[in-house]
Amino acid sequence: MKIAELSRRAGTPIPTIKFYIREGMLPHGDRIGRTQAAYGEAHLERLALIGTLQRAGLTLAVIKRALHAMDGMTGDTPEFMAIAVGTLASPADGAAGPATLERAEHLLRAVVERRGWDVAPGSPVWEATARACAAVLDAWPDALSAPGLDRYAAVAETMAAFELPETWDPVRSPAEALTYVVLGTVLFEPLLLALRRLAHVHRGNTLRARRAAATDGEGGARSP
Amino acid sequence: MKIAELSRRAGTPIPTIKFYIREGMLPHGDRIGRTQAAYGEAHLERLALIGTLQRAGLTLAVIKRALHAMDGMTGDTPEFMAIAVGTLASPADGAAGPATLERAEHLLRAVVERRGWDVAPGSPVWEATARACAAVLDAWPDALSAPGLDRYAAVAETMAAFELPETWDPVRSPAEALTYVVLGTVLFEPLLLALRRLAHVHRGNTLRARRAAATDGEGGARSP
Repeated sequence: MKIAELSRRAGTPIPTIKFYIREGMLPHGDRIGRTQAAYGEAHLERLALIGTLQRAGLTLAVIKRALHAMDGMTGDTPEFMAIAVGTLASPADGAAGPATLERAEHLLRAVVERRGWDVAPGSPVWEATARACAAVLDAWPDALSAPGLDRYAAVAETMAAFELPETWDPVRSPAEALTYVVLGTVLFEPLLLALRRLAHVHRGNTLRARRAAATDGEGGARSP
Repeated sequence: MKIAELSRRAGTPIPTIKFYIREGMLPHGDRIGRTQAAYGEAHLERLALIGTLQRAGLTLAVIKRALHAMDGMTGDTPEFMAIAVGTLASPADGAAGPATLERAEHLLRAVVERRGWDVAPGSPVWEATARACAAVLDAWPDALSAPGLDRYAAVAETMAAFELPETWDPVRSPAEALTYVVLGTVLFEPLLLALRRLAHVHRGNTLRARRAAATDGEGGARSP
């Protein structure tokens, strides 16, 4: 199809399409004349993907990095997840002291070993997790033990298992994998946090009601 | 104790202590003379709490709101959790269209009813969760079904159960409850998100290794 049809079907203005091509975010079309090129379904799909990532609130710079990571993938690419996740900003950027960071790394290593996680210490995601651990320890030294961290790791493992099902194959469909990882991170993080807060409200209400019922029971037993 | 001793034991400068008193974040001492007042353990504890909340990265304005919510609590205060959680900024502030928001509210109501959560539709935490849902649906319309949302709700419920244990009593110890809720939210949110990303890397690596092993197995079976 010509660029006008691509623009119409994708709902993307022609100047925007040309901008994406110049930026290397969209491949050139096949040249079919001195000033014309032919575009295919792959172009439509890529424009849809860019649109989805934009609606998710990602900046153009981040989208560009994510697409490049995706386009650089081969069957051997071992760390696609790390690359895709690494295009996103780190959720924790606290500056903990070196002693705290060391204690955090120690805790994290113990939990990762216990659970047999296949992750490289020193990778960006690992470092971000250690920093988040250290931020907790810095503000609240007794808040986090190995068993405590392990309970959160178990929750994270549960989520990863249903978020990346057995059939999930980043090599077969890099675009789908990118959508999964990037949107799954960007869009589901606020949802997860909001649900946790809502569950806290529920849990607080439930404990309070239970305690009130227990007190009523005691009062009744005591009265004749 | 006099203000100089309070300052020394709490590690808080005298002008800062006076500022907290003026702002209503710390109660006045008992007047013991024309220009002197006596302070007790409650003052020390309050200064420690303020310090902890500050190290957690909360602004003075947020700490002030949280302390006022805490001080306004009585045995009957039904919504302490909601008040404490409400002092924090919402994690999701996307502006979804009204149709999406309605679909999100519908999904959320179904899940909350199915799980029997004791939460008030329309409360700030509820609204924030509905907005986070709507943001997902807006960018990725097929990403979220009732069973999908329910799996996240189950994860949130698991966390709330170990984060707020049976013995947790906001009425008996409001300061401890505030520390739990506010620090638990502020400090553990980045940790939870980082662990989820790390679990994604692990899961991605595991699925890839499993697939590679299966392919090797097929290859071996095919060769004579």
